[in-house]
Amino acid sequence: NTKDVPDYYQMGPGTLKIPNTLFKDNRKRMCDRLVAKNISRGAVMFFEGGRQEQQYDTDRDIEFQQESYFMWLFGVMEADFYGAIDVDNCESILFMPRLPDSYAVWMGELKTPEYFKKRYGVDRVNYTDEMVTILSQLRPSALLIMDGVNSDSKSHFEAPSFEGMDQFKIDTTTLYNEIAECRVRKSPGEMEIMRYVNEMSCDAHKEVMKMMRPGRMEYEGEATFKHYAYMKGGMRFVGYTCICASGENAAVLHYGHAGEPNDKRVNSGDMLLFDMGSEYAGYTADITVSFPANGRFTENQKFVYNTCLKANRAVQAAMRPGVSWPDMHRLAERTIVEEFIKEGVLINGTADEMTDAYMGAIFMPHGLGHLIGLDVHDVGGYVNAPPRIDEPGIKYLRTTRDLEEGMVITVEPGVYFGDALIEKAYANPEQAKFMNKEKIEQFRGMGGVRIEDGVAVTADGIELLSHNVPRTVEEIEEFMNRSN
Amino acid sequence: NTKDVPDYYQMGPGTLKIPNTLFKDNRKRMCDRLVAKNISRGAVMFFEGGRQEQQYDTDRDIEFQQESYFMWLFGVMEADFYGAIDVDNCESILFMPRLPDSYAVWMGELKTPEYFKKRYGVDRVNYTDEMVTILSQLRPSALLIMDGVNSDSKSHFEAPSFEGMDQFKIDTTTLYNEIAECRVRKSPGEMEIMRYVNEMSCDAHKEVMKMMRPGRMEYEGEATFKHYAYMKGGMRFVGYTCICASGENAAVLHYGHAGEPNDKRVNSGDMLLFDMGSEYAGYTADITVSFPANGRFTENQKFVYNTCLKANRAVQAAMRPGVSWPDMHRLAERTIVEEFIKEGVLINGTADEMTDAYMGAIFMPHGLGHLIGLDVHDVGGYVNAPPRIDEPGIKYLRTTRDLEEGMVITVEPGVYFGDALIEKAYANPEQAKFMNKEKIEQFRGMGGVRIEDGVAVTADGIELLSHNVPRTVEEIEEFMNRSN
Ligand SMILES: [Mn+2]
Ligand SMILES: [Mn+2]
Repeated sequence: NTKDVPDYYQMGPGTLKIPNTLFKDNRKRMCDRLVAKNISRGAVMFFEGGRQEQQYDTDRDIEFQQESYFMWLFGVMEADFYGAIDVDNCESILFMPRLPDSYAVWMGELKTPEYFKKRYGVDRVNYTDEMVTILSQLRPSALLIMDGVNSDSKSHFEAPSFEGMDQFKIDTTTLYNEIAECRVRKSPGEMEIMRYVNEMSCDAHKEVMKMMRPGRMEYEGEATFKHYAYMKGGMRFVGYTCICASGENAAVLHYGHAGEPNDKRVNSGDMLLFDMGSEYAGYTADITVSFPANGRFTENQKFVYNTCLKANRAVQAAMRPGVSWPDMHRLAERTIVEEFIKEGVLINGTADEMTDAYMGAIFMPHGLGHLIGLDVHDVGGYVNAPPRIDEPGIKYLRTTRDLEEGMVITVEPGVYFGDALIEKAYANPEQAKFMNKEKIEQFRGMGGVRIEDGVAVTADGIELLSHNVPRTVEEIEEFMNRSN
Repeated sequence: NTKDVPDYYQMGPGTLKIPNTLFKDNRKRMCDRLVAKNISRGAVMFFEGGRQEQQYDTDRDIEFQQESYFMWLFGVMEADFYGAIDVDNCESILFMPRLPDSYAVWMGELKTPEYFKKRYGVDRVNYTDEMVTILSQLRPSALLIMDGVNSDSKSHFEAPSFEGMDQFKIDTTTLYNEIAECRVRKSPGEMEIMRYVNEMSCDAHKEVMKMMRPGRMEYEGEATFKHYAYMKGGMRFVGYTCICASGENAAVLHYGHAGEPNDKRVNSGDMLLFDMGSEYAGYTADITVSFPANGRFTENQKFVYNTCLKANRAVQAAMRPGVSWPDMHRLAERTIVEEFIKEGVLINGTADEMTDAYMGAIFMPHGLGHLIGLDVHDVGGYVNAPPRIDEPGIKYLRTTRDLEEGMVITVEPGVYFGDALIEKAYANPEQAKFMNKEKIEQFRGMGGVRIEDGVAVTADGIELLSHNVPRTVEEIEEFMNRSN
């Protein structure tokens, strides 16, 4: 009896309800794409879900998170599933592991194929030990499988393999590009999730801002963020390692890793740069707030912050379908350079000359932003895209595509005074000549500022998903001092 | 200049300071053991630390946690190190990855060999690309490496491999058993950490008890536990997936996994079974509290709870060096059976007859407890130990050893009314004849109770590490109602 089996995902009351039709719709988008291109007719797409892994050689289970392609197609939360989709009619089959009865004592009541059929809204569910038989009955012209290199991460995708696979014709070349391309544009249902994770993550950031003060440890920001997102949003995981940087650490772009685990004490006068995003049903936010620990910007902090904010807003004002993302990166850099000229931080030249000398990448050494969805750096950035641009800063840009309606992308200009890059620029006469050392030295030690928003591209502009954090100097100071 | 480099690990103010000599002492214990046995003289022990891995094919870093053997020997928090120890003189070398200068922008100032030498207190630090040269200079009679199957988890340990390894004689058989045996008995320094993680985890459990009430979601317990342990204890990770079970879910021993992610609403009348432990410097606690959601035990709940507590305390009273752990398991089961006879839950026979019929394992289907340390199910349980006992319940016991001073082990009897096992017993005439169905049905649906302590074996008894949670019915009711 499957009457009480939910046909949706929801973690708790007040958290987002995600109908299983969202994933059915994703499967349909994929089938439609192949059918429209008239490729792989008669074939069956075949996918392996994530496996339950253990920590090194121990019996400790690593907390399972579904592999993103499998999640996108099936919405399955459990490990060790396989899935198949018939290209021609888009019929879907899930294959579930057959567990011994004894597992009920350890893992809970064993769920049936009927349970999962209702829960995930697929056409049928069989056990993995029936996979070869069932697939054979479909008489596929080929099995289309994921293989090869993820063009965003450069990591190799581990192709599925199973006993009896050799009796099928295997096509490893069709699937990857098509499915990555489908994931680039979010459906209305997916957009709902992106709104949700952004709103919850904004609220969590605000909770952190209320709590952080000089004397706190950076990691208390991480603890508070995770706690809020889980309590209020039902979000068990973050989408990436929390970056809670204070003072000089803000110039370290991926601060927070095991070697620098957010373990500095926050000092009065420090700027904080907190880059955190929580995930729900695998979809993640990625939001950075920068604010003064003591609730008041110094004049120097205000200048750097406003420069960054100006770049952020200039980009958002210019974004719409058809706009090139590298152009947006250049717009952000240009905005920073121009503000630096106005303030006399950069001297002895025009913005054009400084752009030619790559002055922007000294202060913003990373890409402007990246596609986001089930992966924090989402796939498809270099699928059907112009080649990577091999110049300072912009070479790290995670997509060179033109914007399209339905894309969700981060806008995250940053302005940093990192020792390594500034020293290198001082040593390069082509760059040093533009640099007002006296001014720049005043900013050394303040680390830097990043203002990162989650932004959806609409038919004629954008929707700001991370709208619910204080962003201007005035908003931040008011928020920090009101909540005191 | 390494003047300011700490020679200890400490996450923040008020958190435990762990001197690097703790790990030096571990290395010495290992060398002394080999020298005393006069084996592998002239050889060099060689270890590969944990690697930084990415989530599936994405570029998302999985949060790094050090491999436990490497942690035990070197205390290194960073990924991608190797280490060597000369058996004869116990001189230690760490090999660190040589990162390009450009990493400073992303990962923070690049640390030097001198930094790590001071930080980790080893005799020298070289880069991994110097490994073959340095190892050759030592002219080792053999490299002793970890290989083979972890006798606790049954997982395969991935042997280290590096280019140029083939020029050394490799010994894969000596190391594993010796080092696992060394990890079984905790040093005074390790015992300090075990006290710390137990005390912090107890405090976190109390914080959860203050907050949990009918209407809350189970996962709010997980969120609150993690938050407290991180804020107050600087503990970024838990040692295993949090189990926050309410009502019937308490009978599911590993509840909380991705398929059952602590997502039930807590009802009034539910017993809660919360099994959570946080870790610090890789060492973990493992503590279970069971309590009524509404702060008042029913008579049935009180009976089951007190039965479990009696088993827990009987074991702790009997524990001392030389005592066999299987005997302790049997003592716990026997205590439960005797209480069930007194209450008329089990009938028509003596405790002996019921023991012969394995009645205890119906209600306590797991092992009494396990060694704990850097792994929640710590190594060495079946090294130098009698064979596993192939009988219901006790077959899951994670060690058959006699207790020794310095062991840390969990004492976690449980009393459950799980549908699967009770139905199976009803269907078995050899067991059904002892079962008072009318009584047992009264307990169905209440799930169960587990009372899990962390316990150190001392010279003449035990030290209770998890002393700081309310344990008796009276203590729990008083605590739950005081904090309301
Ligand atoms: Mn980002
Ligand atoms: Mn345990």
